[in-house]
Amino acid sequence: MSTTLETLSVTDPLSAYGPARSTVPGTPLTPDQLKQLDAFWRACNYLALGMIYLVDNPLLKEPLRPEHVKNRLLGHWGASPALSFAYTHMNRVIRKYDLDAIFLAGPGHGAPGVLGPVYLEGSYTEIYPDKSLDEEGLKAFFKQFSFPGGIGSHCTPETPGSIHEGGELGYVLSHACGAAFDNPELIVAAVVGDGEAETGPLATSWHISKFLNPIRDGAVLPILSLNGYKINNPTLLARISHEELQKLFEGYGWTPYFVEGSDPETMHQAMAATLDHCVEQIRAAQAEARQSGIPTRPRWPMIVLRTPKGWTAPAELDGHKVEGFWRAHQVPIADVKNNPAHLKALEDWLRSYRPEELFDASGAPVPAIRALAPSGTRRMGANPHANGGLLKKALHLPDFREYGIQVERPGQIEAENTRPLGVFLRDVMKANPHNFRIFGPDENTSNKLSAVYEVSKKFWIADYFPEDADGGELSADGRVIEMLSEHTLEGMLEGYLLTGRHGFFSTYEAFAHIIDSMFNQHAKWLSICNQLSWREEIASLNLLITSTVWRQDHNGFTHQDPGFLDVVVNKRAEVTRIYLPPDVNSLLSVADHCLRSENYVNVIVSDKQLHLQYMDMETAIVHCTKGIGIWDWASNDAGQEPDVVMAAAGDIPTKEALAAVALLREEFPDLKIRFVNVVDLFTLQPQSEHPHGLSDRDFDSLFTVDKPIIFNFHGYPWLIHRLSYRRTNHANLHVRGYKEKGNINTPLELAIQNQIDRFSLAIDVIDRVPKIRVAGAHAKEKFRNKQLACRHYAYEHGTDLPEIVHWRWPG
Amino acid sequence: MSTTLETLSVTDPLSAYGPARSTVPGTPLTPDQLKQLDAFWRACNYLALGMIYLVDNPLLKEPLRPEHVKNRLLGHWGASPALSFAYTHMNRVIRKYDLDAIFLAGPGHGAPGVLGPVYLEGSYTEIYPDKSLDEEGLKAFFKQFSFPGGIGSHCTPETPGSIHEGGELGYVLSHACGAAFDNPELIVAAVVGDGEAETGPLATSWHISKFLNPIRDGAVLPILSLNGYKINNPTLLARISHEELQKLFEGYGWTPYFVEGSDPETMHQAMAATLDHCVEQIRAAQAEARQSGIPTRPRWPMIVLRTPKGWTAPAELDGHKVEGFWRAHQVPIADVKNNPAHLKALEDWLRSYRPEELFDASGAPVPAIRALAPSGTRRMGANPHANGGLLKKALHLPDFREYGIQVERPGQIEAENTRPLGVFLRDVMKANPHNFRIFGPDENTSNKLSAVYEVSKKFWIADYFPEDADGGELSADGRVIEMLSEHTLEGMLEGYLLTGRHGFFSTYEAFAHIIDSMFNQHAKWLSICNQLSWREEIASLNLLITSTVWRQDHNGFTHQDPGFLDVVVNKRAEVTRIYLPPDVNSLLSVADHCLRSENYVNVIVSDKQLHLQYMDMETAIVHCTKGIGIWDWASNDAGQEPDVVMAAAGDIPTKEALAAVALLREEFPDLKIRFVNVVDLFTLQPQSEHPHGLSDRDFDSLFTVDKPIIFNFHGYPWLIHRLSYRRTNHANLHVRGYKEKGNINTPLELAIQNQIDRFSLAIDVIDRVPKIRVAGAHAKEKFRNKQLACRHYAYEHGTDLPEIVHWRWPG
Repeated sequence: MSTTLETLSVTDPLSAYGPARSTVPGTPLTPDQLKQLDAFWRACNYLALGMIYLVDNPLLKEPLRPEHVKNRLLGHWGASPALSFAYTHMNRVIRKYDLDAIFLAGPGHGAPGVLGPVYLEGSYTEIYPDKSLDEEGLKAFFKQFSFPGGIGSHCTPETPGSIHEGGELGYVLSHACGAAFDNPELIVAAVVGDGEAETGPLATSWHISKFLNPIRDGAVLPILSLNGYKINNPTLLARISHEELQKLFEGYGWTPYFVEGSDPETMHQAMAATLDHCVEQIRAAQAEARQSGIPTRPRWPMIVLRTPKGWTAPAELDGHKVEGFWRAHQVPIADVKNNPAHLKALEDWLRSYRPEELFDASGAPVPAIRALAPSGTRRMGANPHANGGLLKKALHLPDFREYGIQVERPGQIEAENTRPLGVFLRDVMKANPHNFRIFGPDENTSNKLSAVYEVSKKFWIADYFPEDADGGELSADGRVIEMLSEHTLEGMLEGYLLTGRHGFFSTYEAFAHIIDSMFNQHAKWLSICNQLSWREEIASLNLLITSTVWRQDHNGFTHQDPGFLDVVVNKRAEVTRIYLPPDVNSLLSVADHCLRSENYVNVIVSDKQLHLQYMDMETAIVHCTKGIGIWDWASNDAGQEPDVVMAAAGDIPTKEALAAVALLREEFPDLKIRFVNVVDLFTLQPQSEHPHGLSDRDFDSLFTVDKPIIFNFHGYPWLIHRLSYRRTNHANLHVRGYKEKGNINTPLELAIQNQIDRFSLAIDVIDRVPKIRVAGAHAKEKFRNKQLACRHYAYEHGTDLPEIVHWRWPG
Repeated sequence: MSTTLETLSVTDPLSAYGPARSTVPGTPLTPDQLKQLDAFWRACNYLALGMIYLVDNPLLKEPLRPEHVKNRLLGHWGASPALSFAYTHMNRVIRKYDLDAIFLAGPGHGAPGVLGPVYLEGSYTEIYPDKSLDEEGLKAFFKQFSFPGGIGSHCTPETPGSIHEGGELGYVLSHACGAAFDNPELIVAAVVGDGEAETGPLATSWHISKFLNPIRDGAVLPILSLNGYKINNPTLLARISHEELQKLFEGYGWTPYFVEGSDPETMHQAMAATLDHCVEQIRAAQAEARQSGIPTRPRWPMIVLRTPKGWTAPAELDGHKVEGFWRAHQVPIADVKNNPAHLKALEDWLRSYRPEELFDASGAPVPAIRALAPSGTRRMGANPHANGGLLKKALHLPDFREYGIQVERPGQIEAENTRPLGVFLRDVMKANPHNFRIFGPDENTSNKLSAVYEVSKKFWIADYFPEDADGGELSADGRVIEMLSEHTLEGMLEGYLLTGRHGFFSTYEAFAHIIDSMFNQHAKWLSICNQLSWREEIASLNLLITSTVWRQDHNGFTHQDPGFLDVVVNKRAEVTRIYLPPDVNSLLSVADHCLRSENYVNVIVSDKQLHLQYMDMETAIVHCTKGIGIWDWASNDAGQEPDVVMAAAGDIPTKEALAAVALLREEFPDLKIRFVNVVDLFTLQPQSEHPHGLSDRDFDSLFTVDKPIIFNFHGYPWLIHRLSYRRTNHANLHVRGYKEKGNINTPLELAIQNQIDRFSLAIDVIDRVPKIRVAGAHAKEKFRNKQLACRHYAYEHGTDLPEIVHWRWPG
């Protein structure tokens, strides 16, 4: 059977057209205010259109000619008018209520709708003086948009006032929430695109309503820009009933206020009435909580702004609907240079905003427009929260050495590596109660970081049960944020850092891949910030990768994936750091370093289970500072060229490599083995590729120029080759690592299947060192038999042999 | 200020305890039915507990002794009772209504709650005869769980009836939806964990309510298992008001029916009444649509099942609440072997299910229990939909050669590579109207695949507007699925494939990273399936990566990321394939191959813009079949050893490499250049690593053993080194690719910044070929100047020089 549109059409209730319909009644604007708002907004629209089309004649002082139009028409008109409408109205309430507010634009390619008002308020010119508030500056401002060497169509780091680029969709609310944390006076206006709203990360981030404390946090004011269309499709939220839409947001804990229509005059009144109401609701909820001292969860206000896509564009072109349809998404009028009718349509459209009323003869916005914008740092393009480095205070860090453990001799005792880190983080939290937060998807206890709860609980403002008192560790005072959404946590942390604070995120290794693309985008943001002198440096994003592959033997194959590192190494060297500290003291040293650093993503790989301890604190500091080094106590090549280099990176691989050395030393006392441990993975890369890269001379002196190297690696083995293929001795480098072999195993069995176990490594050495190859046949047989016995034991008892579990370095 | 629990407590309305409270009234069960259901469920709970704890004494014929208990206690009790409760009740309605149904378990580590009923219904034993329905089989069944060499705690591929492992959370509803597509009689019961419900992918996947056609598709029945806790935390959805919860799901388009409580007897009645109602609602909605022929969107039923976490566990242990708290999440009673009180508590708990009533003396489930389960393929553990390869029909494929374009001479004409693919896919869709679907996040038109709309539109069952008739391409008959959620689409496609159908997914290259982890999990699933003889092979997951980095010059840095391939190469060689066809005919050949293949993830990288065409169809077929080869027409080393090998993989890199060859040939007519094009990326890897890998002999004969190789690669350059580091001539391999340099550029400027452009490559050759190094200084200078002139032009005009844009191979 077939269906026709008619049988399904129910159009009127969801129309974006006509006089405003809104939840909040009232017409609070005087005629003058209305005129002023509308002029500001028309100027924004004019600027957005100018950015997309014009390289010359920016004020339309002459009739529009083909040579005034860009050769390549790029950019997206569709989202712009609603964005600048929201920005314009935020300006009014900022002035009316003296608000401290910033603006996040979620809709894709929304930059024209933000750059326009930022230029009008003067903050753009302050940073980029050549984009002056005159005809010449306007021309430059237009030309640079989506032009080689210029600026992009998202709210890139180059955009004053932006902490949210919006190049990849879905993160605007989590970024907004992070910005609002511990900024009690801040209001974060967060425009959500209705396309973006279909993404998973955005959908679950409506739950930020349960993570904002009305006493100590600021507020997020979501504005759903319901313009109805993505690039070629209607959006889901624009085509469900009004009742469903309202329930959806009420279900997520918000109080939605609808502002719907296309008639500018009534829309301005409706938006003004609604924004006034929302600001007052936010302030009332905060005041009530702050006066009572009781942080209950408000049903925070939000706005559903339903307007036509590409609002104020021509109604149609060449017989096709444009405004209010997906045809308004990108460049609504194409082929302008060669089609005189299109050129005329563009000129009519540009003139419909009456630029002569908006700009004076010199090209500057007229005073009435300038006067709408707040002044100084109240301008959203100049608010220091959006250039967080300006506000950032260095953390008060306790001396991490105090949290270390005693290590008399290497490889003799075991400890859970992350537990002392938890104590350290507890005291970091204590010393920095208002600008440091810890994030984790329901795993801080599981990850042995639970000491932090002694000073700050998991934030919880939904309902409580009596049993929560028994180890629930919940409190509306907490600054540990746990939610089973890596996306939301990562977004919150990014928002927190971008507004000048500090944080720490721990997550399961395999599931770090869930936020691969968020990591990518944050790293790209930082890379561009490094090129902008006015962007102050922010705290690094510190990511602890734990519950790692080698202790996921019991959780099985789905939980075994050390590949996040392969994603990290593709981003720019200037912003990426990877550390694999093998024990407690090295982990503390690395963590301290990371918490002090700026503008990096620091990835720390450390498992949470019991592990052998190797270094006392001073040794650990020296080792971590170098990032790589020979462990003399495990080597017997003193002063000589070794027969083989055994190298390891990561806690378990280090232990197995050491155990292999022990086996070999017993069998071949004359075999000279050098043991190298790698903490800072980028030391392996050439200096020309990464600032942490060893010089070739240093690399060669560690790894020799011609001896076999057996490298036992935490992750996929090929990553080591990728980093070190240019090194002199690369041809002799033999890497073991996770090769995607696993199921339900014991730890040793998992190691054996991937050949990172002591027996496999010892056999690797015998196979590669000529002087023992022949004599080693017997030892190989012995190792193979021992390996087999271990496996039999595991399959019989469900655990590894006690001598494996409790193995200690014999030295 | 500080808050206390008391001030925030509002406990009663959200309690999981007490007699059942439900939306649907009624007590449809007779006393006998009730008794039977409860016995089946008790047996399930007994089995779940046995799996976690027992290696011996499986029927508790003797008093429980320490040696009957596993050495290592693993597994998760918390989710199991509600899962098996749902499974048990599904069994009843399957029999009552003769339903064709499958069961998907979303809650993490939920396997014990599924394995139990699958064992009881006999489908487990049919596949694994050693897990027989007697005492010996039961013992083996218990022991293998979370035991080395055994099975995991998720519904892994080893689980009969499972198409959803649930190791990584968030995909149960999208998998369920994919399974229901084009299976009009199928009901997919999909249990959603309330922890899982916090993830982004799950949150947006409630929108599947807008993608199911009541005429031609089956139904998804979501059952939200609201047990209140994750590993250490309450869940968000369990602590919001009943009103919010109801509105949330109504807002997502569902009709939620609540079943809440802990008293088994009344809960059985409530669940039975509710499930009857839901099945009848589903059937009524389908009947109405099928009779009228009008596919409107039903407000599909769903169930909110609120029960205590770890339901039926001991109320408390050592003074701590267990049942109904997060302490019941994993192994509720620890230290059983050494703590006699704990051993006793465990025995009491096991005996509370009265195993002597559930199993006969031989250890077989008693007849009343067996009788509850449906028979044959109506058993959810034996339903062929969950072993999709059983039902899979090969696609009817038109001859892809018919869709090719004429290519008289290489490198002379341009075409959009994906457009003819769209025509081919249109006819694939036409020939396979009921078992082939196309997925894309709002981009099939943008990706030039719009020909498919001629036979199948974008599915749309929400409201329609009149303007949709103008190019909206919407229809409730469509089998093209577009939603701005890569997660939901990927999940739907996986569900569709896993139930025996075929599909094709196209997505933006940079944003493929959004589904990195889903790709990982699907690849892992396929790897394990390859080890299970009873799992029939399913169609490959075909992923077209388009809108690629080299044509994202205008969208900017956020849209430039070719790193998905780096994720793919880490998965097992037996399930991964990567192709980079450079033109229309090679893309068609590759696509045809992929559509015929089984049990792979095929990643095809091909940009959508205009590209030069190189191969006529027969040449393309030969080239793609080999996967790599010399292009004689671009080489001048006929019969001789070349001076240099120029290699390329990918459309733009191939063009720039050819242009470099042309530049060099003009300057150095005597320079012998061999041109190699790579379509199948894994040919570069050694044969021992990947089945497509070239033998060393073949590799050496293509790339020489000692001549410089300049390799122009589509992605991050290091990936080529990672694949080829073991090859003889690796030391002379010099790779260019995307090095994370980009902003708003022209195409050529983007290439230049990353040194994959013709000029940089030509200079690379001069630098590396001794015989022209000295004489080449002048040419280098010339190339540099030309490069500079191109850049100047771009920064002036906003476009590349026409001679660059319209470059043709001069041959």
